[in-house]
Amino acid sequence: MKLLLINPNISDSVSELIRSEAQRSASPGTEVEVLTAPFGVAYIETRFEALIGAYAAAQLAAEHHTRFDAVVVAAFGDPGLTGLREALPVPVTGLTEAALASACLLGHRISIIAISQRLQAWYREVVESYGLGARLASIRALDRPLASIGGVQEDHAQALKVLAERAVDEDGADVIVLAGAPLAGLARSLKGQLPVPVVDGVSSAVRHAETLVALQPGTAQRGSFSPPPVKLNCGLPPAIARLLDRSA
Amino acid sequence: MKLLLINPNISDSVSELIRSEAQRSASPGTEVEVLTAPFGVAYIETRFEALIGAYAAAQLAAEHHTRFDAVVVAAFGDPGLTGLREALPVPVTGLTEAALASACLLGHRISIIAISQRLQAWYREVVESYGLGARLASIRALDRPLASIGGVQEDHAQALKVLAERAVDEDGADVIVLAGAPLAGLARSLKGQLPVPVVDGVSSAVRHAETLVALQPGTAQRGSFSPPPVKLNCGLPPAIARLLDRSA
Amino acid sequence: MKLLLINPNISDSVSELIRSEAQRSASPGTEVEVLTAPFGVAYIETRFEALIGAYAAAQLAAEHHTRFDAVVVAAFGDPGLTGLREALPVPVTGLTEAALASACLLGHRISIIAISQRLQAWYREVVESYGLGARLASIRALDRPLASIGGVQEDHAQALKVLAERAVDEDGADVIVLAGAPLAGLARSLKGQLPVPVVDGVSSAVRHAETLVALQPGTAQRGSFSPPPVKLNCGLPPAIARLLDRSA
Amino acid sequence: MKLLLINPNISDSVSELIRSEAQRSASPGTEVEVLTAPFGVAYIETRFEALIGAYAAAQLAAEHHTRFDAVVVAAFGDPGLTGLREALPVPVTGLTEAALASACLLGHRISIIAISQRLQAWYREVVESYGLGARLASIRALDRPLASIGGVQEDHAQALKVLAERAVDEDGADVIVLAGAPLAGLARSLKGQLPVPVVDGVSSAVRHAETLVALQPGTAQRGSFSPPPVKLNCGLPPAIARLLDRSA
Amino acid sequence: MKLLLINPNISDSVSELIRSEAQRSASPGTEVEVLTAPFGVAYIETRFEALIGAYAAAQLAAEHHTRFDAVVVAAFGDPGLTGLREALPVPVTGLTEAALASACLLGHRISIIAISQRLQAWYREVVESYGLGARLASIRALDRPLASIGGVQEDHAQALKVLAERAVDEDGADVIVLAGAPLAGLARSLKGQLPVPVVDGVSSAVRHAETLVALQPGTAQRGSFSPPPVKLNCGLPPAIARLLDRSA
Amino acid sequence: MKLLLINPNISDSVSELIRSEAQRSASPGTEVEVLTAPFGVAYIETRFEALIGAYAAAQLAAEHHTRFDAVVVAAFGDPGLTGLREALPVPVTGLTEAALASACLLGHRISIIAISQRLQAWYREVVESYGLGARLASIRALDRPLASIGGVQEDHAQALKVLAERAVDEDGADVIVLAGAPLAGLARSLKGQLPVPVVDGVSSAVRHAETLVALQPGTAQRGSFSPPPVKLNCGLPPAIARLLDRSA
Repeated sequence: MKLLLINPNISDSVSELIRSEAQRSASPGTEVEVLTAPFGVAYIETRFEALIGAYAAAQLAAEHHTRFDAVVVAAFGDPGLTGLREALPVPVTGLTEAALASACLLGHRISIIAISQRLQAWYREVVESYGLGARLASIRALDRPLASIGGVQEDHAQALKVLAERAVDEDGADVIVLAGAPLAGLARSLKGQLPVPVVDGVSSAVRHAETLVALQPGTAQRGSFSPPPVKLNCGLPPAIARLLDRSA
Repeated sequence: MKLLLINPNISDSVSELIRSEAQRSASPGTEVEVLTAPFGVAYIETRFEALIGAYAAAQLAAEHHTRFDAVVVAAFGDPGLTGLREALPVPVTGLTEAALASACLLGHRISIIAISQRLQAWYREVVESYGLGARLASIRALDRPLASIGGVQEDHAQALKVLAERAVDEDGADVIVLAGAPLAGLARSLKGQLPVPVVDGVSSAVRHAETLVALQPGTAQRGSFSPPPVKLNCGLPPAIARLLDRSA
Repeated sequence: MKLLLINPNISDSVSELIRSEAQRSASPGTEVEVLTAPFGVAYIETRFEALIGAYAAAQLAAEHHTRFDAVVVAAFGDPGLTGLREALPVPVTGLTEAALASACLLGHRISIIAISQRLQAWYREVVESYGLGARLASIRALDRPLASIGGVQEDHAQALKVLAERAVDEDGADVIVLAGAPLAGLARSLKGQLPVPVVDGVSSAVRHAETLVALQPGTAQRGSFSPPPVKLNCGLPPAIARLLDRSA
Repeated sequence: MKLLLINPNISDSVSELIRSEAQRSASPGTEVEVLTAPFGVAYIETRFEALIGAYAAAQLAAEHHTRFDAVVVAAFGDPGLTGLREALPVPVTGLTEAALASACLLGHRISIIAISQRLQAWYREVVESYGLGARLASIRALDRPLASIGGVQEDHAQALKVLAERAVDEDGADVIVLAGAPLAGLARSLKGQLPVPVVDGVSSAVRHAETLVALQPGTAQRGSFSPPPVKLNCGLPPAIARLLDRSA
Repeated sequence: MKLLLINPNISDSVSELIRSEAQRSASPGTEVEVLTAPFGVAYIETRFEALIGAYAAAQLAAEHHTRFDAVVVAAFGDPGLTGLREALPVPVTGLTEAALASACLLGHRISIIAISQRLQAWYREVVESYGLGARLASIRALDRPLASIGGVQEDHAQALKVLAERAVDEDGADVIVLAGAPLAGLARSLKGQLPVPVVDGVSSAVRHAETLVALQPGTAQRGSFSPPPVKLNCGLPPAIARLLDRSA
Repeated sequence: MKLLLINPNISDSVSELIRSEAQRSASPGTEVEVLTAPFGVAYIETRFEALIGAYAAAQLAAEHHTRFDAVVVAAFGDPGLTGLREALPVPVTGLTEAALASACLLGHRISIIAISQRLQAWYREVVESYGLGARLASIRALDRPLASIGGVQEDHAQALKVLAERAVDEDGADVIVLAGAPLAGLARSLKGQLPVPVVDGVSSAVRHAETLVALQPGTAQRGSFSPPPVKLNCGLPPAIARLLDRSA
């Protein structure tokens, strides 16, 4: 089984973190490949940056999906995910969706620990768009500048752990999600150090993508996740046009 | 006052409908300009097409906004709207948001009449993302192929009217929204022919954009709609990069 | 265009504030007139007082509406609004509804700043009755006695500003609504002093009323906002009886 | 124990139905008295009529409450109830609230059977204002003209029963509420003829009012149901002024 | 009228508290009997303990219900209640459901005061399962070890009162529910000492059970609370088997 | 890895279906064992039967869990699941929860196809208790008697398929869940015959249980899913007592 993980940000250091955690998480026989967005921003914190990341993710997915059994949008917030689920013929998931799926199987109320204050509003909207607002205990976030996006988990592990503890004790969290590709692998490092189960997006996405391939649930021929109706288009990157024209 | 309306689809015929209705709706002293997406699809019906339209709208807005007092994303579903509200220094609205604002001032439960079955899921998600699910009586849609996107309201006026009547009588609609730029102006033509108030997106957006300019509510310097934090970016269209770098 | 603003309280000093802000906000060509309730309380803070104010507003509206193109219930909390929307043949809005409509076009989560603690429960119920609970970040209120209802904004401008700042920083507000007719005009005075957009009810109501007149959406002949069915009544003020009997 | 039931409509024939069912339902030792609104409409179907009925109910309650241990607003829709709960020093309930309380103790999803189509929107809003929207399976209503409001249950018993049956079989109702004072007593007459428990408002309100008196839960000295703050008022009926001035 | 109250815990001291408050609350002519679970835990705080208590309650109810007019599950959290409502031919209620019904008739937002921190999550889920999440202002709980479950209200009356005060002042509670059978009678003792109405589960359940018997609403022959379909079963306590086989 | 699947019903034929599908679904290296409830009913359709099944599941889990890496409650509706999640030291999931987790990764709105009308209310409540009501497009169910619970999928495959088609076309389902252990394996047999992805509970539960073991998220030491506090108990099956006393 081959999985494509798309980093919709331009940070190679984050792609490296994604790759490492994805490889550690994958089942025997699963190959993972991580691609980095050719355009965009260092890391997505806002709705506008997510809009850009969604388009970058769409372009990479359109170009490369044919070689893979499933695709993962490897940024928390899942830019482009629901659109790609319509357009691609293989299963697609994202870090937020996958982490929440894991968390829902481990407890009732979930807190998300994020790396910047600004992320909170966008994350909340994404969780609510999945209909999971009632499961959200809180979102707590670092409130300090990040020296390097690839080094967040090293620089701030202790502060992140404190946020998680407070989410448990003050917000009633049953499960902690360590959010954002820059934290990929931190759940693993913190193993046994938090008072409730803790999940991260990359390992969840890899495992759930494997499950979706294994279950062979079939594809949407009708309904709102079937491929977009074929119609006139122009000016699009060739791979996206091919996807829309079903000529892939 | 100068308003920019961005058609995030590639259909000039629809841009023409938007322009006509915008001009009819604008207050004295308001100039409107309509731009058509340089890339994308003929009309947006799905999440994937909306993702593309959002990027096209972002690009046009980034390039042209400096000449305008406010910007309207002129497709129902408002692709890119919340992102642009962060990034642009002027008020931004969209056809769905604006039509719902009008409708909320006219009644309690609102039905949306759409031009294709496929549009329903996406429209519903947009309404719910605005927290207005409780106001939605129903979405009803044409179930026939559209010969030409620019001619929908002429070809199907009667069928659309029947859908609106059924929304009132069977779904309890207090107000009807005729949805989609291809229907721009139809509410005006049907004046007096429906048993409840009827609104359309273009005229609502033009009027509400004028109001936002007139009220001078100030801009967001903090909070989730302040401009995205400045950070490294690459590979972006120059106008988008300028917007992100605050060098505009 | 002629707009009637009804102050459902008996305070002439507040009517004066409403009148000033309405005149400042109105478009060229719009005339505004403000009427003060002939019976009731100094200012409405509770459900019981709102019940009284609703009846006073209904009486004034019934007596005077025929000279106007639209009617505004000029108290936050909108006493009587949904009833009047059924009964009057012209558009009706209220300060809460109108301020929320503006706020929804400027951001996602909204905080309301109120002039007394007691107001909070009632305001919350009104916002929820509009289906907008999900958009409400918080309601924050002054917790000190009000020396004079007409002088609230002068006496407490600084305290109100601090409440708004806290709503942004602690509650995640994207937009601030300065609530209550006694604060009419304060948003204008605070221009540029708050970190997010700020709206008030009077200017929003005036502008949105103008829009509703301009859009000419038609009136409700069926559905829950059509006029109440004609039936036996007795003992009512003549103007209300005329409205119910359709003899106006 | 003495209970006051206020019919906020002007129909003596309905007051008679209320009186009969209240007497049949009351515990030994409970005296009931029914008063009819001195002004208003024949029966309340709309928000505007409810606004009038609320004021009439307030006036009667203010004048007479001192002789009673509890007060019931005896119209479905409970016009004025939450306001009176603030203002009166004794427990107050209403037909909708009381019928829903009974129904919630008998099953999960509740259907309301109403006597006119027009009533549905208002009833739905009242149920939702009580936070009970999730318990509402459906509202079904007669769709024929009512020859006499006092004779509805005789004229339409069979049609009402059919509506109830359909609510069970098609809407998943676990409990039926026969709504509206004009149906007072019908639940009793239909005993054993419906496939699920059935409740009516008058008997529920009488019994629950007795319970509230018996439990002696205390009154609100703080919070949103404490009496409205004393403040200037003018032009009010003397009994309402006395209530507001705490001089009763 | 004979009421059976089932304590699904094994604590006789708590059964004694339940019995005393039930007798004080019952109307003349009502006999109450309290039975204690023959197996289980000292007091239920968690979902797993509730599962056990539900089975114990079911067994006692199956064995004894034929001698009673109504049954009360006398633990806050109502273990087994909705199941027993299907299976028993008489009305059934529980402490949470009954206390909430009382509270909903006394105010809008309700706070629950609980005897241990651990109880909060389970209580919240129960309230939400009743569709009453919107009425819940807060759950506040003691955070100290309980020396004896039968002596909680004596040992901690002051601390419980402080929690109630804070719920009113900080959480906006209109009504307080003193939760849990170990607090049976405390609302009565605190009479006049809290600033808002206060209710307890046992007295509410006794009174509401009497009401359900008096109203004679009929039983469910269809719908989700009709008796479980007869089918093969094995290994069950004889009384439960008789109930399922309708051979009771 | 060893997985325990507990059939909380007494039907060996259903256990056999569960076993077959579990074995087909398990990853290489995973051993599955299925245990059948020693007491209970043939299949659970109601809240009362679920209460019994929960206790049976708890007893089996308490007795056998020490030999396993994870436990699955193998009945749709998940009787006992949230309780067992507190009490057991290994991950636990259930068919409903697991099927919904899969479905949420494949589309937005989900329809559940059930084998009897009676199941619908209970299933709906379970989905809502998971906070997933907004994802539920519909529940549709067979409306005919079941000759044999083990033969449902053979006898009614065509009718079930028609229900699924209608859920897609009339209810807007993006994904179908074939619900209930008696349908274990049907999703696999219908592969390619439905217009949207289809999932079943057993294969989903097996795969997700494997994932939970692989992710090693840690266990709850605090919060609402930590083990119930140790306290007095009596009369319990020895294995349950051991679990509560932490002497296992």
